[in-house]
Amino acid sequence: MQKSLDASFGALPQIAADVLDRLRVNRPAVHCITNNVAQAFTANILLSVGATPSMTISPDEIAAFVECCDALLVNLGTCDAERRKAIDMAVTAAQKTTSKPWVLDPVLIDRSPSRAAFARDLAGRGPAVVRLNHDEFRVLGGEGATPQTVEAYARDKALVVALSGASDLIADGTRRVTVSNGHPLMARVTAMGCAASALTAACLAVEPDTGRASAAALLIFGVAGEIAAETAHGPGSFAVAVIDALFNLDAATLRQRAKVM
Amino acid sequence: MQKSLDASFGALPQIAADVLDRLRVNRPAVHCITNNVAQAFTANILLSVGATPSMTISPDEIAAFVECCDALLVNLGTCDAERRKAIDMAVTAAQKTTSKPWVLDPVLIDRSPSRAAFARDLAGRGPAVVRLNHDEFRVLGGEGATPQTVEAYARDKALVVALSGASDLIADGTRRVTVSNGHPLMARVTAMGCAASALTAACLAVEPDTGRASAAALLIFGVAGEIAAETAHGPGSFAVAVIDALFNLDAATLRQRAKVM
Amino acid sequence: MQKSLDASFGALPQIAADVLDRLRVNRPAVHCITNNVAQAFTANILLSVGATPSMTISPDEIAAFVECCDALLVNLGTCDAERRKAIDMAVTAAQKTTSKPWVLDPVLIDRSPSRAAFARDLAGRGPAVVRLNHDEFRVLGGEGATPQTVEAYARDKALVVALSGASDLIADGTRRVTVSNGHPLMARVTAMGCAASALTAACLAVEPDTGRASAAALLIFGVAGEIAAETAHGPGSFAVAVIDALFNLDAATLRQRAKVM
Repeated sequence: MQKSLDASFGALPQIAADVLDRLRVNRPAVHCITNNVAQAFTANILLSVGATPSMTISPDEIAAFVECCDALLVNLGTCDAERRKAIDMAVTAAQKTTSKPWVLDPVLIDRSPSRAAFARDLAGRGPAVVRLNHDEFRVLGGEGATPQTVEAYARDKALVVALSGASDLIADGTRRVTVSNGHPLMARVTAMGCAASALTAACLAVEPDTGRASAAALLIFGVAGEIAAETAHGPGSFAVAVIDALFNLDAATLRQRAKVM
Repeated sequence: MQKSLDASFGALPQIAADVLDRLRVNRPAVHCITNNVAQAFTANILLSVGATPSMTISPDEIAAFVECCDALLVNLGTCDAERRKAIDMAVTAAQKTTSKPWVLDPVLIDRSPSRAAFARDLAGRGPAVVRLNHDEFRVLGGEGATPQTVEAYARDKALVVALSGASDLIADGTRRVTVSNGHPLMARVTAMGCAASALTAACLAVEPDTGRASAAALLIFGVAGEIAAETAHGPGSFAVAVIDALFNLDAATLRQRAKVM
Repeated sequence: MQKSLDASFGALPQIAADVLDRLRVNRPAVHCITNNVAQAFTANILLSVGATPSMTISPDEIAAFVECCDALLVNLGTCDAERRKAIDMAVTAAQKTTSKPWVLDPVLIDRSPSRAAFARDLAGRGPAVVRLNHDEFRVLGGEGATPQTVEAYARDKALVVALSGASDLIADGTRRVTVSNGHPLMARVTAMGCAASALTAACLAVEPDTGRASAAALLIFGVAGEIAAETAHGPGSFAVAVIDALFNLDAATLRQRAKVM
């Protein structure tokens, strides 16, 4: 019954290449409410593909920034009271229009009950995509949540789940695709997941099909990670090389390296 | 009537080389109120030329830090209430003495009316230099502001305007100079402009002529960018190489590469 | 009377190699309350040796994070009211158990009297280790504090002092050791000291002898610095290479390069 995103939409590598082209041409503005640890790396990842990041969380500015932007990232890392207020204002601003897609990244909700409750509330406020890891989905998805329940969750909440791991699973309730690119060094650099979520937001800004946009983002990011690992001497040079690889990525490389099922 | 800074002061490359020497010998303390995204990169840029950065915005500490420092940077990125209060306290502390020059960097005031109003107020409180891009100057400079009105604005406010773009224009009302160094990759790394403003503050700490100091800073930064681009594989390795290039920059290279008019 | 840590415990290089192995296998969780400037670099240093960083300072989350973690870092850089409150809550949570060691890094207390007072208070609340530089120790150690009074201070407070400089002195009141590894470029990269403190916290999580753990951390960090300097072109590539070097460090290299007295 469920179709592969790849099968139903044609070749995901080509979709990803088209999305990447549009990022470079359209240069979408992506407003990121993200944790302090991730801010600089996230901004540099977005800039490397052509997107324009902004990151304020000031209450008297955030609505203006969200209204100007093409997509929004809501990341719950280092989530203090000020940031929660900013998130609430930003999501309210995004909800005013259907053309302002936003991504929820419920960082480390498995470590903080109050953050988990906040994430559950946010998941009901219309994010286009929730990007998270397996530990986080076990908390967000509720009792008995497993990779097998991802699609039911996505259908129920009417959103795309992008579940990161050794392989990434992207599902929107009727379609699913698995992307097996990436490299173990990605787990050795802080904010890699956060940056993947930001890239997903950027892709949503140029591709209205949220399933395609999410799968394209994770394919692009995974392939860049593989390329970076080939020249890296460790996680320090790897982080630098990921940014370079995103900047230089082309359609032929995406086609050649994609591991999509 | 208006003289080139370069013509009036002799060779800017030599001035810049002298400023760089003084940075390395005197190691000025530069207190930076800057956005979270820019903090680490800014600190590393300052350290690469020998300056000593500090970055607290805590209300009960900031006056002590500003009193100890040799120059101050006020950057309005991610400008929340706490940071505005810190800025107010820092500028008040800096105003107590004429020997504590400060740089205003009105980041993204074109995106936030409240931030623009704050920037206009600060521009009236005696910054030695305002460093900003064209979009930001259009807002700060008021109705009809263009690159042609930069000098009138600088004269009126009794400060130096350092207007960044493909070429950088530095003007203090009676003198002007254009620096055409730099590289397009500089726009692909977050906090490059913020770091240029911090470097300007550092140069003000060792060169009392604010026009010279500003022009020297942007020449040094632009030449470092060009050198970095020669070995970079993309914006990731470029950001790293800019820091290395600043650390290694010498007078001969400045003379050889300077594009000053 | 005082014995060398090295002499009394056998070869420090071997101890450090064992600690490094345990970091890679056990992957301890280290909660870091640290300044914004240092967060990303600190997280990447921890990840490079296998530790898992977390960094929230939110009052309604921090106790949960500290309870889950294996060691805690309290760094006083950019120390605002929110961060002080977080520190108080974190230390209270850590004090509930003897198995939750914490490191105090009193950054720049020589520049801020209020921060110095806070640091003195914290030093009395049971940190396993205080890691700091000479200027900071002169303030923390009180009237007449010098490197010669480090051991008396450590004995009096029942903690380990790790005093960083051209050589690092580690003392716990009955034992002392000097580690002379490291490289001058370490002073040209922001957050190097902060990262050394975080690495110390990680080592405390896998080595119950706090003197050994501290000395191992600074030996590991210093040797990584030396290796990084061999390929670096300046402080930018040096910072990247330090992370790579930590990731690749092995027992043979530690033995070969250690300068321990």
